Amino acid sequence: MNIKLPKKTILTGDRPTGQLHLGHYVGSLRTRIALQDKYDVFILIADMQALTDNARTPEVVSSNIMEIACDYIAAGIEAKRTHIVVQSMVPELAELYMYLSNLVGVGRLERNPTVKAEIQLKGMTDHIPAGFFMYPISQVADIVGFGADLVPVGDDQAPMLELTNDIVQTFGGLYGTNVLKPVEGLYSKVGRLPTPDGKAKMSKSLGGALALDATEKQIKSFVNSLYPGMNGRRIDEPGLIDGNVILTYLDAFDPDVEGLENIKQRYIEGGIGDGDIKNRLLPCLLELIAPIREKRTELKKDLGYVKQCVYQGTQVGRERVGKILDKVKTSIGINHSDYIFKEYITR
Amino acid sequence: MNIKLPKKTILTGDRPTGQLHLGHYVGSLRTRIALQDKYDVFILIADMQALTDNARTPEVVSSNIMEIACDYIAAGIEAKRTHIVVQSMVPELAELYMYLSNLVGVGRLERNPTVKAEIQLKGMTDHIPAGFFMYPISQVADIVGFGADLVPVGDDQAPMLELTNDIVQTFGGLYGTNVLKPVEGLYSKVGRLPTPDGKAKMSKSLGGALALDATEKQIKSFVNSLYPGMNGRRIDEPGLIDGNVILTYLDAFDPDVEGLENIKQRYIEGGIGDGDIKNRLLPCLLELIAPIREKRTELKKDLGYVKQCVYQGTQVGRERVGKILDKVKTSIGINHSDYIFKEYITR
Repeated sequence: MNIKLPKKTILTGDRPTGQLHLGHYVGSLRTRIALQDKYDVFILIADMQALTDNARTPEVVSSNIMEIACDYIAAGIEAKRTHIVVQSMVPELAELYMYLSNLVGVGRLERNPTVKAEIQLKGMTDHIPAGFFMYPISQVADIVGFGADLVPVGDDQAPMLELTNDIVQTFGGLYGTNVLKPVEGLYSKVGRLPTPDGKAKMSKSLGGALALDATEKQIKSFVNSLYPGMNGRRIDEPGLIDGNVILTYLDAFDPDVEGLENIKQRYIEGGIGDGDIKNRLLPCLLELIAPIREKRTELKKDLGYVKQCVYQGTQVGRERVGKILDKVKTSIGINHSDYIFKEYITR
Repeated sequence: MNIKLPKKTILTGDRPTGQLHLGHYVGSLRTRIALQDKYDVFILIADMQALTDNARTPEVVSSNIMEIACDYIAAGIEAKRTHIVVQSMVPELAELYMYLSNLVGVGRLERNPTVKAEIQLKGMTDHIPAGFFMYPISQVADIVGFGADLVPVGDDQAPMLELTNDIVQTFGGLYGTNVLKPVEGLYSKVGRLPTPDGKAKMSKSLGGALALDATEKQIKSFVNSLYPGMNGRRIDEPGLIDGNVILTYLDAFDPDVEGLENIKQRYIEGGIGDGDIKNRLLPCLLELIAPIREKRTELKKDLGYVKQCVYQGTQVGRERVGKILDKVKTSIGINHSDYIFKEYITR
């Protein structure tokens, strides 16, 4: 007998502060595309969260919402299966955040690694926006608000899951309910891609990132700039694996795993040049990016389709969060519309 | 030529953590009743704010919402002129709070006197709920969200107005708009009433408060318990004014100001006993409280009328805040419903 279990829910998302790049593709987008068959996936375009440290340049946030939506769809996110949701259009998340923020001590936020790093960087807490200080709770509201079972994360995001599950436990204990579900991390096997010089991880704020709509010329120039771990090696000298950015990219993008292992072996022994492995990488990236770039260009010509996908996804998300918020308020005993004022509400 | 200016808006409110008492009557309620002719008054039942440090006992908050509404109406707040609003039923305030919290530094909150006192009291920031730490910003969201011109305050609330006006200025400067209005304090001439022993100010959490529906017996016993500034004075000895709780109450409640001055003079000179001035105070309180108690008992028999008043007031408040939030989001450039997704919105 086959019993069809309901699909588990996955919440994932990005802060819309720039176009997505190759690092996003490897680190998360590729996984999301693979997950959308088996799971109920919500992707949150976290504009409220992005504003917590971009309040002085809100146009950075607002102008990137549709850009990032185009990236998603061009890369293979299908709106029929994945709900793309704009965070600020789900005001229920703001309410939920307020209720949850009463269950977390200030000390816990002060110890949050990201917030702590920011405080050290800026020196004075005066320069840390209160909204930014609180963003870990807002993330928790997102996770539990969508009823996520799983959240794809990197190793550095373990504190987020811990905070979520602590809040879930506190909430359940205080109000005697399992409305809020504990969450599990879906840890990525692939680490973050390095920048071409190998000195940092690819990020939106730093340079050295290859956009998902890069031209052939940009891709070629990018591949050429990748650092092979040492300079001035003669072909017959042994090549390096550690710190070799070209090989790291081949690991991430070469679909021919066996062939790649073979090449690597010969590279270490000497006899294969850096140009040879760059020539192996180039077509991998060209073939990966070309259809994304073409689809993205097509989508951008008339944003109607992307808008429709995002708008509909947001409606689905809003309904989901609304139902959970409703139960949360009932559990706290603060759902006055349903109690004190029941006779006045027409639904 | 008479030009009719629009009425100025006043925002005031209470945390619903207990019934109102005589201290509230003197300190704020009496003023609000007088103001409702000249101003557009919103009274906020601040249940979200009360939850910031009552999350573990939410029933304290939820059970007092209608109690406090009954107090208002029984004391003379007229729903036709004053809008009684339940904070948690205006979710737009939560959104506004999130946007504003990006404009305030964490250091500023750490220096807030109330928060600072709480941190000293509790020792560890771990025991300060993050929501409580943030409540000053939530208050600002309330004030600017209702578009208040004036806020009745005590001297200790000056930091709240300062924070409000700083945020208003930052917001206006950053986003080039005067959507958010600066606010002025309406400082109360009357200080807070002392407890009967004169050792503290009347508050909801301490004992020694006389409820607005106190019985005759309770009022008599309360008046009897008031401390005259010294014990064991003979009638012909001079009486004290300083620290004399009976006289403080007479100052607050005796409508015959001239007669009272006369009595005070004779009291200082000696010749009038403490019982005499208590006997003067008793009818003042009996006459003040009797109609409030009777009306309150009537209202509580069938809460329908009170519910209707509060529900309608909340709708008016919600509409008001919604319009301002809309402009706030447009100013930030995050009103996606009006821009990106305009064609999908049916209003």
